[in-house]
Amino acid sequence: MSKDKIYFAGSIRGGREDVDLYHELIRNLQNYGEVLTEHIGNREISIQGEDGISDSFIHNRDLGWLTKANRIVAEVTTASLGVGYELGRIVERNLWIPSNDKKLILCLYRPNVNKRLSAMIKCSEGILSEEYKTLNDAKNIIDEFMKNGKRD
Amino acid sequence: MSKDKIYFAGSIRGGREDVDLYHELIRNLQNYGEVLTEHIGNREISIQGEDGISDSFIHNRDLGWLTKANRIVAEVTTASLGVGYELGRIVERNLWIPSNDKKLILCLYRPNVNKRLSAMIKCSEGILSEEYKTLNDAKNIIDEFMKNGKRD
Repeated sequence: MSKDKIYFAGSIRGGREDVDLYHELIRNLQNYGEVLTEHIGNREISIQGEDGISDSFIHNRDLGWLTKANRIVAEVTTASLGVGYELGRIVERNLWIPSNDKKLILCLYRPNVNKRLSAMIKCSEGILSEEYKTLNDAKNIIDEFMKNGKRD
Repeated sequence: MSKDKIYFAGSIRGGREDVDLYHELIRNLQNYGEVLTEHIGNREISIQGEDGISDSFIHNRDLGWLTKANRIVAEVTTASLGVGYELGRIVERNLWIPSNDKKLILCLYRPNVNKRLSAMIKCSEGILSEEYKTLNDAKNIIDEFMKNGKRD
């Protein structure tokens, strides 16, 4: 099996309520390849963000990782401006680059009576968007995506 | 003065705390051109989103408006996945299209001790990102952007 480079996206400054879940999803993704953004699941990183590095460093590092990754997996239950931005960058870029360079994108969303997923993400033709309830459901969706989530 | 087509982006499903502010910013923007997304400032639209139209309709309508607009103004204090996605789409698209077709993007952010703006937005080279405190500050920034916010 070829080693994938995976960009896992989850909320930091939008809220850290799901950090433990991110940690578990990242552990599952590590069965399939290198997760470039392992820090997203680090409980020590608060809503204030990473300590000791500048915003400009974070921006450039994350854009570099996005470019390097061949698969993007985003947990989008906690609304995050940065995650939305990253998804938008790659969905649009996929329209302009050769087929072989396109990145596969999976979004995972936990439905809730008081919240709804953005229509822009849910209906984006460039994103495979899946709802789940339990951690196990989410892991199964990831397994399926990593094994079979090939683009047409 | 040529009539601009303006895409105003603000949070809907990410939270409606700032809807009155969006309304005022849209009124100010209407001095300069047509605001395609006037509904963002409508107090009757809740966090559940627009009634009676499908997510797919919203997605296609908003992407069409984004393409039609020549300026994007986003209020990004309330984290929104959809706003982030729209910004990412246009920042990336601007890298691939001819100079004359590029859209100018302004983001307005109200700093708060408990929150920080995403580094991806703050440091994006394709976005003019400005902090403000009062509605008047925000209007002044918009005035400046609409009159002088030309790309280099």
